[in-house]
Amino acid sequence: MFNSQMTWKRKHLLDIYNLSKEEILAVLDTAKGFKQLGRRSIKKIPALRGKTVVNLFVEPSTRTRISFELAAQRLAADIVNFTAEASSFKKGETLKDTAKILEALSADIVIIRHRSAGAPHFLSRVVNTSLVNAGDGAHAHPTQALLDLFTMREKVGDIAGKKVTILGDILFSRVARSNIWGLLKLGAQVTLCGPPTLVPKSLESMGCKVTYNLKEAISTADFINLLRIQHERQRHSMFPSLGEYSKLFGLNKERLAWTRPNAVIMHPGPVNRGVELDSEIADSDRSVILDQVTNGLAVRMAVLFLISGGDPSKETGDKPST
Amino acid sequence: MFNSQMTWKRKHLLDIYNLSKEEILAVLDTAKGFKQLGRRSIKKIPALRGKTVVNLFVEPSTRTRISFELAAQRLAADIVNFTAEASSFKKGETLKDTAKILEALSADIVIIRHRSAGAPHFLSRVVNTSLVNAGDGAHAHPTQALLDLFTMREKVGDIAGKKVTILGDILFSRVARSNIWGLLKLGAQVTLCGPPTLVPKSLESMGCKVTYNLKEAISTADFINLLRIQHERQRHSMFPSLGEYSKLFGLNKERLAWTRPNAVIMHPGPVNRGVELDSEIADSDRSVILDQVTNGLAVRMAVLFLISGGDPSKETGDKPST
Amino acid sequence: MFNSQMTWKRKHLLDIYNLSKEEILAVLDTAKGFKQLGRRSIKKIPALRGKTVVNLFVEPSTRTRISFELAAQRLAADIVNFTAEASSFKKGETLKDTAKILEALSADIVIIRHRSAGAPHFLSRVVNTSLVNAGDGAHAHPTQALLDLFTMREKVGDIAGKKVTILGDILFSRVARSNIWGLLKLGAQVTLCGPPTLVPKSLESMGCKVTYNLKEAISTADFINLLRIQHERQRHSMFPSLGEYSKLFGLNKERLAWTRPNAVIMHPGPVNRGVELDSEIADSDRSVILDQVTNGLAVRMAVLFLISGGDPSKETGDKPST
Repeated sequence: MFNSQMTWKRKHLLDIYNLSKEEILAVLDTAKGFKQLGRRSIKKIPALRGKTVVNLFVEPSTRTRISFELAAQRLAADIVNFTAEASSFKKGETLKDTAKILEALSADIVIIRHRSAGAPHFLSRVVNTSLVNAGDGAHAHPTQALLDLFTMREKVGDIAGKKVTILGDILFSRVARSNIWGLLKLGAQVTLCGPPTLVPKSLESMGCKVTYNLKEAISTADFINLLRIQHERQRHSMFPSLGEYSKLFGLNKERLAWTRPNAVIMHPGPVNRGVELDSEIADSDRSVILDQVTNGLAVRMAVLFLISGGDPSKETGDKPST
Repeated sequence: MFNSQMTWKRKHLLDIYNLSKEEILAVLDTAKGFKQLGRRSIKKIPALRGKTVVNLFVEPSTRTRISFELAAQRLAADIVNFTAEASSFKKGETLKDTAKILEALSADIVIIRHRSAGAPHFLSRVVNTSLVNAGDGAHAHPTQALLDLFTMREKVGDIAGKKVTILGDILFSRVARSNIWGLLKLGAQVTLCGPPTLVPKSLESMGCKVTYNLKEAISTADFINLLRIQHERQRHSMFPSLGEYSKLFGLNKERLAWTRPNAVIMHPGPVNRGVELDSEIADSDRSVILDQVTNGLAVRMAVLFLISGGDPSKETGDKPST
Repeated sequence: MFNSQMTWKRKHLLDIYNLSKEEILAVLDTAKGFKQLGRRSIKKIPALRGKTVVNLFVEPSTRTRISFELAAQRLAADIVNFTAEASSFKKGETLKDTAKILEALSADIVIIRHRSAGAPHFLSRVVNTSLVNAGDGAHAHPTQALLDLFTMREKVGDIAGKKVTILGDILFSRVARSNIWGLLKLGAQVTLCGPPTLVPKSLESMGCKVTYNLKEAISTADFINLLRIQHERQRHSMFPSLGEYSKLFGLNKERLAWTRPNAVIMHPGPVNRGVELDSEIADSDRSVILDQVTNGLAVRMAVLFLISGGDPSKETGDKPST
């Protein structure tokens, strides 16, 4: 892990957009070591002993919270959960005030999930505590992108030149956005596909290809990343119904036949079974959905580890991705 | 504890029904050692250091959750709470998917409470993680039965031949069901009593006696275990009212005179004071209600300890009790 | 810390009212040592290793809960959160039963916040566990008072003879009540100010001055402690509106000019910005609001530390303050 610590100088993980290829690889290499550790009987190392990590989840998420909580525990950090329901946001306290208080309590790292895009960037300008973005609105979800990259590299080694298709609700997806930046930085070819209302042609300006033809999108892909239809989040429905979506873009057995025999199926979870993806495929050996979960823990350990050792004096201001 | 570990080979604790007498005694003997430990100033041992325990409580229960949480902490495990309210069950994730994720996160033991009978057995067939049933519907609550057996043995030594009366809502009670199996395996004589709607005669097929005569039920008993009337759970009232129940079957001072002078009063808690049991008796030295709580912690430590050391390769499939 | 442990013999912290000046100073001196510790990279000491601390918060409070949780973690205690929402209070369990259960589970210290004045004192008579009052109704909030005293001493050394003005909703404030007792014991001069409905003249019987003239109240003060208007708590409004309160008693830039140039602005948080206090002043270097947060952690560590070492045999019964 020595070289990774040489490369990584950041105090925060706010976004994939601002990371260099070398920084991304530093996280992924560090995570590789931590994944080994997870196979031992005693899975802890004292790297963050005596440090305090706060899970500030202003938008609920059990999976991601637990993944970060376990990551912090395995590094022997103390961890405090601060969820919106229990919080004094009810009393009208602002996010800034809350972050200031966590800083005053000497929190070393605050992991923040928030409904509003840019919330972690905003906080990085008002507090000195290290921040990890665990998902902000439709903007970014950098640890999800890093764990997806880790999972792809685990399958094929270098992903430069590999074809990755991201399918579904791209426009409202922080997962898509962070994945696209990460994939492009590592040299992958990215194709986006889904209903035109959710995958506007303008996304091509990011450097990827947009198509509305499912067969074309998936037939040459090395990786097919199916995004969750966030039906609970969209107020004005952008497509007729879940059934309609499934009929047009859901991956079922018949359409799987269009793909390359070793194309890898990915999904950030939780899967809407029968909507984006049929259960049979989700649970088959073509899918790496559970590997993504396992790798997420290793990647989050790596992020907490690197951030703790990073030299804040060399921190450069990050510009949010768009 | 050496002999207990020789006897115990199971990876899960799903049910009392499938345990042998020797396995039950292995837990109770191990718990005895842990109860001693609880009296020391430093109450921790590093038996589960670096292991991850998840409290997956899909039905709320503060008492049982805290008891397991403390048990895990005293064995130096890391523990993560996953409660239904905070969970992504809201997002339509299935129980199986959740368990698969916990397995992918390398959880060593998942403690599960669930509204549906059979949920822990179901999970034991789909994940490799160790499972502890912390109560499933009206089916089983094995650690409650084990702590009740522990408490009885603490009072009288061997419980073979002892008379145990279980009083109240037997039909809907996982506590009753698990207690009956445990008591019969250890050779106790079990009498069930309560309103006929809640204590059908057919329960005699389990190997115990059913009576609707309270005086008969309690006058020769060594132990009287009063179950909580789960009035918040029954949709169609099986008896007129709590007042009516109390009038017919509540244990008050007058009726206590019917019992043997050293008959022991038990209750799994929380007591509906004045319904199943008068406060005066609940708080008297005839009652061991708080000993049950203390013993619960020791028993749960024993279960977590034995399960962690059990050899999964020798695991035999459990058949759910009925 | 040796001398502090000589002075401190109490098993509970229920109230400031019963503490001697020497006991208050013992906490503050101990906290000073712990504040130093918070500046180190590894912020933990094993003083409470193997001890169990329970956060029994029957009234929600994220700030105070997290402050106590971090304090316990830094002393290496195990900590369990027990909040009202998740609790079996829903099942009709009484507070006394809950405390008895925590005692039976060998909890070493129970930190209790409760809506009802006197709840912690009541529990101290029914359980043997150490208790820390984290706020009971409108009665007492001793750790808040101690952290306020700590913060004042940090600014001026000895506070005997210093002028402290408490401003706002005194009548309904446990913070005010505990601060008044603490300040008077250490020899400060206390002035109370606010609307007559919230600051009755009868409070002068405690030994402080009451005035309704804001200018008079703040112009000679060394410390101005602005209390939060608990608008979510008052059922029958005791004043026309928040806007009206702000107009009459809110501290803004213009009124700040009335104060002494080095008068220190305090607030227990969370601030209703623009009501009690303008943002500009809250965030200026005249304010020590975030120091109060930092000091709260050190003071709570000191309380947990001293209580754990206190000799229960020498405990004298406390009388609740009025």
